[in-house]
Amino acid sequence: MRAVYLDHNATTRIDPVVVEAMLPFLGESFGNPSSHHAFGEAAFSAVRKARRQVQTLIGAANDSEIVFTSGGTESDNTALLSALAALAPRNEIIVSAVEHPAVLALCERLEAEGRAGVHRIPVDRCGRIDVAAYEHALCERTAVVSFMWANNETGTLFPVETLAEKAKAAGALFHTDAVQAAGRVPIRAEETAISMMSLSAHKIAGPKGIGALYVRSETPFYPLILGGRQERNRRGGTENVPAIVGFGEAAERAASRLESEARRMKALRDRLEQGLLGTVPGARVNGDPTARLANTCNIAFEDVDGDGLLALLAREGIACSSGSACSAGSMQPSHVLQAMAVPASHLGGAVRFSLGRDNDDSDIDHVLAVLPPLVMRLRQPAGARKVARAG
Amino acid sequence: MRAVYLDHNATTRIDPVVVEAMLPFLGESFGNPSSHHAFGEAAFSAVRKARRQVQTLIGAANDSEIVFTSGGTESDNTALLSALAALAPRNEIIVSAVEHPAVLALCERLEAEGRAGVHRIPVDRCGRIDVAAYEHALCERTAVVSFMWANNETGTLFPVETLAEKAKAAGALFHTDAVQAAGRVPIRAEETAISMMSLSAHKIAGPKGIGALYVRSETPFYPLILGGRQERNRRGGTENVPAIVGFGEAAERAASRLESEARRMKALRDRLEQGLLGTVPGARVNGDPTARLANTCNIAFEDVDGDGLLALLAREGIACSSGSACSAGSMQPSHVLQAMAVPASHLGGAVRFSLGRDNDDSDIDHVLAVLPPLVMRLRQPAGARKVARAG
Ligand SMILES: Cc1ncc(COP(=O)(O)O)c(C=O)c1O
Ligand SMILES: Cc1ncc(COP(=O)(O)O)c(C=O)c1O
Repeated sequence: MRAVYLDHNATTRIDPVVVEAMLPFLGESFGNPSSHHAFGEAAFSAVRKARRQVQTLIGAANDSEIVFTSGGTESDNTALLSALAALAPRNEIIVSAVEHPAVLALCERLEAEGRAGVHRIPVDRCGRIDVAAYEHALCERTAVVSFMWANNETGTLFPVETLAEKAKAAGALFHTDAVQAAGRVPIRAEETAISMMSLSAHKIAGPKGIGALYVRSETPFYPLILGGRQERNRRGGTENVPAIVGFGEAAERAASRLESEARRMKALRDRLEQGLLGTVPGARVNGDPTARLANTCNIAFEDVDGDGLLALLAREGIACSSGSACSAGSMQPSHVLQAMAVPASHLGGAVRFSLGRDNDDSDIDHVLAVLPPLVMRLRQPAGARKVARAG
Repeated sequence: MRAVYLDHNATTRIDPVVVEAMLPFLGESFGNPSSHHAFGEAAFSAVRKARRQVQTLIGAANDSEIVFTSGGTESDNTALLSALAALAPRNEIIVSAVEHPAVLALCERLEAEGRAGVHRIPVDRCGRIDVAAYEHALCERTAVVSFMWANNETGTLFPVETLAEKAKAAGALFHTDAVQAAGRVPIRAEETAISMMSLSAHKIAGPKGIGALYVRSETPFYPLILGGRQERNRRGGTENVPAIVGFGEAAERAASRLESEARRMKALRDRLEQGLLGTVPGARVNGDPTARLANTCNIAFEDVDGDGLLALLAREGIACSSGSACSAGSMQPSHVLQAMAVPASHLGGAVRFSLGRDNDDSDIDHVLAVLPPLVMRLRQPAGARKVARAG
């Protein structure tokens, strides 16, 4: 069966060129960068090179601003906890209601334990942040603001540069989760007021289990994981050399084709989206119509069970994700779509297509051929009336 | 030049068989285990298999007791912080003076921030724990005891099974850092009173950047890294599938040849040690003469600069490590050797040889031929008198 992978916001296939770059470090160049002999030195140089590649991807002023971590989740946790420690007695956090669980789950715990007060800024029906509510929440008790650059479910882009300026003016730190944005939209960290930024390699054709936290030079920092003196005392643990090398390579490749890929993605995505909107009655796109990642299409089908649709698509070889998340053993509508007040008729029927390097027009053709009849099938018998009405 | 790697306690070369097992997950099987489609399911099954392989290595009762982390350092940090959160208002930690920095650096911070009181139990000249001091420190305020199974610098083995019983009797949790022990000495977690145990793959021919925390079923647990619902809500972040698969494979291989390798290591190590003691005047072995990892030889040469010796050995292709650590930019004698009261004459001249799978008799021959004259050279002119005396 033809396999069509349209779940690149969940994870991506590593670029074979990236694997190629990693292989020596899974083989003979296996040294520990902290060791004072040839094995260690080879590893040490490789890590330095990768740090510069990641620096370049996000336009950081200095490679010492890149701290390698085990991924986006660790980076998010580190940023928030570090900011709280650094800016005490300030003890308030401002986040959007649509952040990734790596931010929101931590906020819930901090709140429950009385370690921080959390403001969750709402979004409108297009997923745009409520700037007035943000400005209202910002105050001299704010330790850190965390707004994601691009939303993983809808692709909606927040204007993080201007949002960061406001935090700075209030004396707070500003963190952005750029896990879905880096490598997909241009980022010039140096030219912004962003204090910290989370990155993850496996969303940009790099390996899993490696990420980074950008920590601007002047930002005070408290490590989450303490141990050896790795990462200039900012993250203990033997460096994951092969993965770091792979991240660097993936970052360089993403940077070099960022614009051409974004153009290509947008053309494919728009064709998919227009095709579905044109053939499936009662479909609506979730997310900001203009400020949106070029690769992401979150589309909700009225009166359809999104998880059921996902399962049927999977049987046809199409891999994507639904707008629901497993919570306490049952499927719950996504917090992102709920925050956007997606109507009840559509809330359960959302599907996310996220495109990547391997996709081409034939993949889109396949989805456009396969999906509409599946939606019709899922709507029978209960939905037959509605379909007639919509038609 | 012939390369002789004798630094396996720093890190090991991945077994090519392990790399082989990882490759599919760096290629076509790139799915996210949380995804509900074929790509996700393949990754999900692979992680489950690896969890069982690690379970088997340490004789845990259930595979749900294995929580994958990014390595030994994260596991150590997680264990201590979780125990403090779980057993509050108990707020004391008992550790040995010779723990890895992953434990000691965290303890220093917790103490400095007033979040915990720390008892550091001394060791004797052979590196053996002072059991009376431990018993004296244990009390109803003890939240967690952390004693390593095997010391990374000297290989000294602590009697963790009996030490764990004492903690249990006092109502405290018991954590052991088994990063150097797992895969090298038999471990039957189920039959002990150990609450938590740290593991790391890269010390046993597995990949870097992956480890695990064993969390006994009845042990209360608070995650260090919060995010998605991975690892049964105990460790957020997309699973590092290739590394987890590699860890599982390495664990299985280590388990299958544990005894034969230990015998082989001990024979090589003893030949190295006896050879050096017999030819280099003023040499002494650091560590427990009997309860010691079979692969580790920490040997100190009187009136020699260990780092200088290390550099000369490196020029001859011999990779090992010295008994010093870089601290605040300068080399300091190891905290382990200091805690063992290694005499000043020998403290600066310690070298650690740690053997592994790739070593054989010819490696030992090489060291025995190369090292003694280097020591003599380093001792001139300042040490000439002493050498004469010792001879
Ligand atoms: C926006 C966002 N933040 C954080 C993460 C977590 O990254 P990681 O899986 O590397 O921990 C993800 C992806 O899972 C994400 O999409
Ligand atoms: C005893 C001990 N504990 C913890 C660690 C840290 O493990 P990792 O490098 O996987 O973070 C090491 C090795 O560096 C070690 O030898």
